[in-house]
Amino acid sequence: MVETIQWADAGVVMIDQTRLPREEVYVTCRTYQEVAEAIRTMVIRGAPALGVAAAMGVALGMQRVEGEFRAHLDRVCATLAATRPTAVNLFWAIDRMKRLALKLEGQPHDQIAAELVAEAQRIREEDIEINRAIGRHGAPLVPDGKRVLTHCNAGALATAGYGTALGVIRAAVEAGKKIAVLADETRPFLQGARLTAWELQRDGIETTLITDNMAGYFLKRGDIGCVIVGADRIARNGDVANKIGTYSVAVLAKENGVPFYVAAPLSTLDLSLASGDEIPIEQRPASEVTHVFGVSVAPEGIHVENPAFDVTPNRYVTAIITEKGVARPPFEETLAVFAQK
Amino acid sequence: MVETIQWADAGVVMIDQTRLPREEVYVTCRTYQEVAEAIRTMVIRGAPALGVAAAMGVALGMQRVEGEFRAHLDRVCATLAATRPTAVNLFWAIDRMKRLALKLEGQPHDQIAAELVAEAQRIREEDIEINRAIGRHGAPLVPDGKRVLTHCNAGALATAGYGTALGVIRAAVEAGKKIAVLADETRPFLQGARLTAWELQRDGIETTLITDNMAGYFLKRGDIGCVIVGADRIARNGDVANKIGTYSVAVLAKENGVPFYVAAPLSTLDLSLASGDEIPIEQRPASEVTHVFGVSVAPEGIHVENPAFDVTPNRYVTAIITEKGVARPPFEETLAVFAQK
Repeated sequence: MVETIQWADAGVVMIDQTRLPREEVYVTCRTYQEVAEAIRTMVIRGAPALGVAAAMGVALGMQRVEGEFRAHLDRVCATLAATRPTAVNLFWAIDRMKRLALKLEGQPHDQIAAELVAEAQRIREEDIEINRAIGRHGAPLVPDGKRVLTHCNAGALATAGYGTALGVIRAAVEAGKKIAVLADETRPFLQGARLTAWELQRDGIETTLITDNMAGYFLKRGDIGCVIVGADRIARNGDVANKIGTYSVAVLAKENGVPFYVAAPLSTLDLSLASGDEIPIEQRPASEVTHVFGVSVAPEGIHVENPAFDVTPNRYVTAIITEKGVARPPFEETLAVFAQK
Repeated sequence: MVETIQWADAGVVMIDQTRLPREEVYVTCRTYQEVAEAIRTMVIRGAPALGVAAAMGVALGMQRVEGEFRAHLDRVCATLAATRPTAVNLFWAIDRMKRLALKLEGQPHDQIAAELVAEAQRIREEDIEINRAIGRHGAPLVPDGKRVLTHCNAGALATAGYGTALGVIRAAVEAGKKIAVLADETRPFLQGARLTAWELQRDGIETTLITDNMAGYFLKRGDIGCVIVGADRIARNGDVANKIGTYSVAVLAKENGVPFYVAAPLSTLDLSLASGDEIPIEQRPASEVTHVFGVSVAPEGIHVENPAFDVTPNRYVTAIITEKGVARPPFEETLAVFAQK
């Protein structure tokens, strides 16, 4: 399996997801600012992977404390938190690291540094375990002998390993089900074409790449057994923020009677939000739409909007697959139970 | 206005739509085989423009008759008909030219050649008139002060001039309405990003480019007054074949209470088909999905499906705007009336 992100003596090592699938290049972030920049430019992306990256960023930033401890900790955390607004796992991981750092305050610096690294590595290892559990819970939901449609990349590359949506697919395949994947290319950043197609191809899972606007055609034709996607933030009521285009797929799935599943760790749950309307939607640069690998595809000077996420209202979501089990509507109740476990 | 296709002494002159918006290059087809190749490779595309191209292709092919008259005519028509299967205007124009050729059989060759050229030019001029009429009928339907969403390119470049969907927008703007356009980029061939954005920008009509999977986000947000698209073939019951992704936009429009209009000449109507299920859907090469302007965006060897069109069932269509007026459900009845007029 691909190593999305690892802690090394030299710093935080990530596979550069902006250069896949054309080049398999690993970059080493030697400062927390470099980790923040890697998150901002999407060298690493995917909600759970962003959590791990942010945790390792905090650990890296706390290896050497400049000035006052709390002021330095705040600076490190604020820099990492200011990178991308939608995926809540990022803030969850920063909070967890910050709480530990504050608990350790006053201890010998070497010990604080070592414990924060250990915690970041624990978050990484837990994420892989969580994904395996999501896979175990989700695999029985996947119809045998049919196609699964997925959007964006909620795979090994979006996590510390194994994947959430693709983890469910991997677990179903491991359980002996005959499954083929239909992967939306996911414009503008092409996570489906570049990342999902790449990692499933490496795993030998039969994959067909389509453009985003073909999903409706295949859902209507009836050969898709279910849709499985990841999530960047889930509100208390089960509204799901995920990669732009997810909402459209959910509406088209419902219109055609196809189950729509969201696979995500409970760290994606934001119980502070009553509904998805409160989730901040990141607007990204126009150049992602007007250029593909540096090649211009639109007239110069054209106005662009580039919301990176959308919110799928809970009424389109058949179930949310978490590491503690499968939550079904009413999500306000079922998610609350899992969150308390 | 851009000249999409014209008859010249040297042959049929077209703007090369595969190279827009980066280069404004005109190509001259000197044989009917070259016209067929231009249609196949999408140097020219758009249902009404394909009708004009096919008509001019027949005229060009009949300038010199090789062998027996009818055999030659059949060869010319069959070559042009074998290019693209979905847009019915292509077959409609070939039939019209063939009928005239058969009527002229036995006349002096120079006269036949001249009359076929005149007929092809008439089809071109009629198309512009038809588009103006579609614009007049459609303009009152466009809500003032709101955005119009369009998919693919149903503009001047998809016709002999003015456009069908974009003709309605142009007519609404000419009538003084304040309208901004939201243009789906329309993967894989990017007709929205490359052609719609380009021609609306030239006309000074405010245009925002989005990726296809953002349409749902904007429809849900409530700032779109209506959707207007073109059509490649309309069945007797009002089912509409149009560029892949149209079905998704139609479902999302209905889900959000936004009117969904189809603008098309009556030559797009195929009364021989009871429903859209019978419309042949062209499958195009994988390379259109895996490569953008020659740049690879997916792992090598990945499997691709590339249906170029989809069918929108009539229940999602608010109205069909034709040159004879606006047809509303039940389309089986209203379209039949227009077709007989």
